Amino acid sequence: MALIVQKYGGTSVGSLDRIRNVAARIKKLRDEGNQVVAVVSAMSGVTNKLVAMAEELNDTPPERELDVLLATGEQQSIALVVMALQGMGVDAVSATGRQAGISTTGSHTRGRIDQIDPSLVQAYLAEGKVVIVAGFQGTTEDGLIHTLGRGGSDLSAIAVAASLKADVCQVLTDVDGVYTCDPRVVKDARKLPEISYDEMLEMASTGTKVMQSRSVEFAKKYGVVFEVCSSLNDNPGTLVKEEHPDMEAVVIRGVSIERSQARVTITDIPDTPGHSGKILGCLADAEINVDMIISNIASDGMARHSFTMHTNDLGRAQAALKTLVGNISPDANIETEAALAKLSTVGIGMRSHSGVAAKMFQALGDANINIGMITTSEIKISITVDENDIEEAARVVHSAFDLDKKPSL
Amino acid sequence: MALIVQKYGGTSVGSLDRIRNVAARIKKLRDEGNQVVAVVSAMSGVTNKLVAMAEELNDTPPERELDVLLATGEQQSIALVVMALQGMGVDAVSATGRQAGISTTGSHTRGRIDQIDPSLVQAYLAEGKVVIVAGFQGTTEDGLIHTLGRGGSDLSAIAVAASLKADVCQVLTDVDGVYTCDPRVVKDARKLPEISYDEMLEMASTGTKVMQSRSVEFAKKYGVVFEVCSSLNDNPGTLVKEEHPDMEAVVIRGVSIERSQARVTITDIPDTPGHSGKILGCLADAEINVDMIISNIASDGMARHSFTMHTNDLGRAQAALKTLVGNISPDANIETEAALAKLSTVGIGMRSHSGVAAKMFQALGDANINIGMITTSEIKISITVDENDIEEAARVVHSAFDLDKKPSL
Repeated sequence: MALIVQKYGGTSVGSLDRIRNVAARIKKLRDEGNQVVAVVSAMSGVTNKLVAMAEELNDTPPERELDVLLATGEQQSIALVVMALQGMGVDAVSATGRQAGISTTGSHTRGRIDQIDPSLVQAYLAEGKVVIVAGFQGTTEDGLIHTLGRGGSDLSAIAVAASLKADVCQVLTDVDGVYTCDPRVVKDARKLPEISYDEMLEMASTGTKVMQSRSVEFAKKYGVVFEVCSSLNDNPGTLVKEEHPDMEAVVIRGVSIERSQARVTITDIPDTPGHSGKILGCLADAEINVDMIISNIASDGMARHSFTMHTNDLGRAQAALKTLVGNISPDANIETEAALAKLSTVGIGMRSHSGVAAKMFQALGDANINIGMITTSEIKISITVDENDIEEAARVVHSAFDLDKKPSL
Repeated sequence: MALIVQKYGGTSVGSLDRIRNVAARIKKLRDEGNQVVAVVSAMSGVTNKLVAMAEELNDTPPERELDVLLATGEQQSIALVVMALQGMGVDAVSATGRQAGISTTGSHTRGRIDQIDPSLVQAYLAEGKVVIVAGFQGTTEDGLIHTLGRGGSDLSAIAVAASLKADVCQVLTDVDGVYTCDPRVVKDARKLPEISYDEMLEMASTGTKVMQSRSVEFAKKYGVVFEVCSSLNDNPGTLVKEEHPDMEAVVIRGVSIERSQARVTITDIPDTPGHSGKILGCLADAEINVDMIISNIASDGMARHSFTMHTNDLGRAQAALKTLVGNISPDANIETEAALAKLSTVGIGMRSHSGVAAKMFQALGDANINIGMITTSEIKISITVDENDIEEAARVVHSAFDLDKKPSL
């Protein structure tokens, strides 16, 4: 008998039929003798509908009230899942974030889980009940409702698993694991049996949006091993866990790609301190998420700063920078380029192997694919290419590192 | 400056436009310098939709989970009303039943308000905020969610008003007060400026469904004076309050009617103790709401029991009674009659005036309307008539007691 914590996302509970499907999966685990706690999201579409109502009443809906409004989505889901379970003869009970003891700090609409008092959930488990917990929500010390922001239900599940010292934590989603690359792009992409937290973090931040980084960070911090798997089948998924020595034998774990990228380059800025801080501050004030950042000094001693961002942000970025850059130097120029894509190779084995970048760039060069910007971290190399080249680039790099083949350890 | 507690029902917040209208009404009171707490229901239709989902998943949805599910309706309303208010520049804040300190006992789906800790609401009021409270809900000592059953939001409003010692409690609804009779039936029916709790209770239990009896009982118990008025206009409504001597000068306060009534009469039952208890117990087990009850002994020494109920319950009542009555006596008969209606005259003045029944029956006799059953209480006389006669009966009685004319006190 194991204590299993599962997380079902909005798509998995997106209709009454799917709720029945979730209930049947939980019943199966229960019938096999396990204790089960399932964290569920709002039915897909519900949150968007509520936000639309809010925005019709108020252009900038107050965040405190958005939390009160949106938390109802998960509250409805937990009641419905329990009803389905009881209809199948499973003794089950629901718990809102508050009832599950999820305490939060931080701001409305982006609360942070502070601590969990699992005593009520444990009491229900001790009575032999399945417990269905509302994801994405908690309450402050003062009893105010917080939602946890994007990926909040994953975070709830991992935190609940940590607080209960669960044997297994499964994040059920509409993909059945983490792949060496997007299988829609690279046909022979392979599902990874396991991946380290750090690799998962880099994959998450580079376009493989299986989970938000914060949930992975939380799992890493509290040592929660979790499995990403499908809510539609019983295939084994991908275990996300602390790295172990064997993992380093694999140089590259996977390749992730991100489309619709744009680049802004500011040239001919005097190379004096403080300018890059001002430029990034200006972009932050405009709420533009900057991804890659490169700065360099040209041969004439003038600085050159480049950033990437989502194409949708390019216009706003250019507008925000125009005045600032003019004030810094009348000679400065803003160049922009859209229709780019980013490709990243990720692997903790990279740390102990030289020549990874060389192999990657060689393969791309052989395929006649031009590389734009390059940035590196300890376990990741990212480049930009023309958006038209991204699929070919992914296939070339995937193949160069033999990612289609199961590594021999 | 007054502290005003208002209650808006599901129809009043039934669309985003109506929510804006509610917000505008609250803003007006606030602008006039009042402190305002509004208790709101779920948007009309929402509760039914949630119940339908529940019943699709489970023929008999567990009541604990129904409470979790249905409480989301009011939680959504409070957030939306606050958003509308803030959009109009009014500093407002929402409170769920729990946040408003509403503690309940009793069963799921029909919780009873045990006590209210108004400290959070008072703190918000002290900050100059309008507070929007979720009606129909509270939480148990253990933090479980309770809904309060039919009329629960009225109950919440009256309880909140009591706990805050509000100056005014207004129940806003789609009628603009309590009338001497249904104005759709009696054209010259008059809106009552005031009515005693006891009269309101008798009116409520006899077809004038402005409010559920339990809310009126609660108001009476805690001495909360409240006004029933319209959410669509600013006309003065009807004040419901403790009786005062002047009220007794009016013999009959109003006439209420109830259609779709049916009668069951059991004849030729031996007049021995315990039979009527068995019969009523049998109807209670079948969850049939019995209204009027009359028992008598016929000249042959056999008992005769008559009951009225809603026509919809007649078939089930007959089925439930069949075996029981056969067991009591093989000679007993069950007679039924449908297509009846009930007419009641209500007034605390009745206590000190004889001849009320005589005047009422005389007027009906003059109009050639046949009276079926008769029951009386201290402040009410109820009769049944043929359903076809009910409107004429109402007009005749209304006129006989001069209810169209303002009483001269």
